[in-house]
Amino acid sequence: MSNRIFATYLIETAYPVDQAAAAMAGEQSSGTFRAMPGETAELLARFGARVESIDIIGDTQYPSLPHSRGPKTGASQRPRQAKVTISWSVENTGTILASVWSTVLGNLFELHHFSALKLLTLEFPDSFADAYPGPGFGVSGTRKLTGVYDRPIVGTIFKPSVGLTPEATAELADMMIGAGLDFLKDDELMGDPPHSPFAERFEAVMKVIDRHADRTGRKAMYAVNISGDMDAMRRQLDVIERRGGTCAMLVLNSTGLSGVIEIRRHSSVALHGHRAGWGLYDRSPALGMSYLAYQKFWRLAGVDHLHVNGLRNKFCEPDDSVIASAQECLTPMFAREDRPDTVMPVFSSAQSAVQAEETYRRLGTTDLIYCCGGGIIGHPHGVEAGVRSIHEAWQAAREGIPATEYARAHPALAAALDSFA
Amino acid sequence: MSNRIFATYLIETAYPVDQAAAAMAGEQSSGTFRAMPGETAELLARFGARVESIDIIGDTQYPSLPHSRGPKTGASQRPRQAKVTISWSVENTGTILASVWSTVLGNLFELHHFSALKLLTLEFPDSFADAYPGPGFGVSGTRKLTGVYDRPIVGTIFKPSVGLTPEATAELADMMIGAGLDFLKDDELMGDPPHSPFAERFEAVMKVIDRHADRTGRKAMYAVNISGDMDAMRRQLDVIERRGGTCAMLVLNSTGLSGVIEIRRHSSVALHGHRAGWGLYDRSPALGMSYLAYQKFWRLAGVDHLHVNGLRNKFCEPDDSVIASAQECLTPMFAREDRPDTVMPVFSSAQSAVQAEETYRRLGTTDLIYCCGGGIIGHPHGVEAGVRSIHEAWQAAREGIPATEYARAHPALAAALDSFA
Repeated sequence: MSNRIFATYLIETAYPVDQAAAAMAGEQSSGTFRAMPGETAELLARFGARVESIDIIGDTQYPSLPHSRGPKTGASQRPRQAKVTISWSVENTGTILASVWSTVLGNLFELHHFSALKLLTLEFPDSFADAYPGPGFGVSGTRKLTGVYDRPIVGTIFKPSVGLTPEATAELADMMIGAGLDFLKDDELMGDPPHSPFAERFEAVMKVIDRHADRTGRKAMYAVNISGDMDAMRRQLDVIERRGGTCAMLVLNSTGLSGVIEIRRHSSVALHGHRAGWGLYDRSPALGMSYLAYQKFWRLAGVDHLHVNGLRNKFCEPDDSVIASAQECLTPMFAREDRPDTVMPVFSSAQSAVQAEETYRRLGTTDLIYCCGGGIIGHPHGVEAGVRSIHEAWQAAREGIPATEYARAHPALAAALDSFA
Repeated sequence: MSNRIFATYLIETAYPVDQAAAAMAGEQSSGTFRAMPGETAELLARFGARVESIDIIGDTQYPSLPHSRGPKTGASQRPRQAKVTISWSVENTGTILASVWSTVLGNLFELHHFSALKLLTLEFPDSFADAYPGPGFGVSGTRKLTGVYDRPIVGTIFKPSVGLTPEATAELADMMIGAGLDFLKDDELMGDPPHSPFAERFEAVMKVIDRHADRTGRKAMYAVNISGDMDAMRRQLDVIERRGGTCAMLVLNSTGLSGVIEIRRHSSVALHGHRAGWGLYDRSPALGMSYLAYQKFWRLAGVDHLHVNGLRNKFCEPDDSVIASAQECLTPMFAREDRPDTVMPVFSSAQSAVQAEETYRRLGTTDLIYCCGGGIIGHPHGVEAGVRSIHEAWQAAREGIPATEYARAHPALAAALDSFA
């Protein structure tokens, strides 16, 4: 079994591609361009990063990013794009995620050789499955906590994102759970502000959840946002656990890797991973890292849910990218049945009954969290019909019946298709 | 005194710029494009983000980033660039850095309105100076710890970055401190790997540091890399403090905000902030955030040193950007004499005696850490002459004497200028 980390990059360079790849490998292992005292051939063979493969894509007319330099001043080479796979021995990093991050996402982006550099895929050796716990709940655990099987977990996000009092948030929760929703979450903008302190908001919503659970036998899940300083996050996690909450939300990019890892190690509830700001990493085709690589860090760290946008979302992510992200969340990282590491993809952004058919057709599963706002609240027959329209759309999809056909006998779905298509 | 957070962005949009700015403000406060139940005019006035100013830059020929959309399908508007300042009440976020990060760096980058979006500058209200400790040592504290005044703190980075044993690292330290260096640091790739466990490496280097301190009366500073999981970082910080170390290094992007904040709250040593991977944030002119905004998060979190590359560096950062970054590190964030928050800029990457003159001329101070590798080790008269050449170059700069003139009576400097210019 390999004990190496493999990373595949898109690169664009005016250097010969093999030279540029060697510069990446050198910078990210020996860490300097010139031979240093102590840098023996033996050390290089053992600890040097290895260029595993180079696939030339083709030339581009202009550099995608500014300030790169070619091998000779004044030479006007066209930049060339290629896919390059580089590997490192796990001896370099140990099984420490922060060290891997520095290795595969470190000073590379600034190397003058490159007018584009993006991490496309990342493979961890199995030793990381022992070093990090991975998701504590994942797909099956989240289903158990919510009591929802055979269909997506249907949820919503509290809006407006800021300004609501704890009481107003609880009223919204009451309306939404009363209408049949399984899952509620804070927006990433709602943390622990003076107008809605975490403790008050959480308690107000939990009272509503408990009241409905007494009636239905199912406890709605509330992904309450605890992202903040470490000590506050730990205190809030304690409150959630003591009060019988089942989920905490972490904004991954603002909390950071060591914070998420730390919360997972102390948590007995599901962790909802919000990727707000992810566009910074993946919006440019020439820079950053793909979601396929990005999500692996957070799954190892141990989140249970990961956002993937949704089909025909209000953002600028194409549908193919959404589906690829969701598929990746549902694909095991390691061949280890004793340690499942798939996570629930969270679909949201302009979702309604309309996208269920295509989402199911392309994804082939109902193992997902499906968050709707206007697609439920804006339903012409009311919120309850809004939730019913989502259930009906997914039921139709599972039975392989076109939504428009199923809608003939299901007025809530019919109205949703009319309103939101 | 304002109690608002101000963020200025470069944007590029095919929408009318005021509409696009309103979409940013809406997404990052109410968080949705349509009016929701409970979203009253009063709530919007109090919690809505405010578009403070719009400065049109001009039209561009093509969209800088793919997948943006304009107001009408099929319309072929040219994208227009502008600088837009948006402000938020601190009521939205509380004084919580993670909430600010989600607010100013959240889902914005994915909005379909934009074919470019970059955070240029960020202003925190004074309440953040009370909520976060800021640097514990900064410029003056780092000078006290090292006993270096009136010139830059001169340092080096252990290379090769991986593969060295603790003993080999200590041998390098011995050579470099013996030659007169004030400061040593791990590369960001050197964490706590099996071939050089933190505890062994640190102890081996500290023995060398103590031996030289007995001789010189000055204790060289070792920025040992503790970036990793929270519990390991805390253990390593304890070891550093008990053993009389004076500095710990954190790779900011891999550790993350909550981890850095947590370490600062428990630390009694200087914190060396490494920005490895920073190119991902700032390399594109069309996406991400500038260093001017980026560094403020880490200064509030409490690091004491921040990397800024160096003039004529081996990366692709232009000199003007390097100087602007260093100036920003040395500019107070708040008008609070009781709580200084400037930090030592760390110059590194292909530095030697050659760049001292221009660095001093443009920066106007010696308050910096100046890290050299080849510029010291590669000196033709040996390592000690290498260090001397740096001291001489900075002495000449401070006295306003051109380096070439000063070099006539200073052979170490003369040889350095010959070799490295």
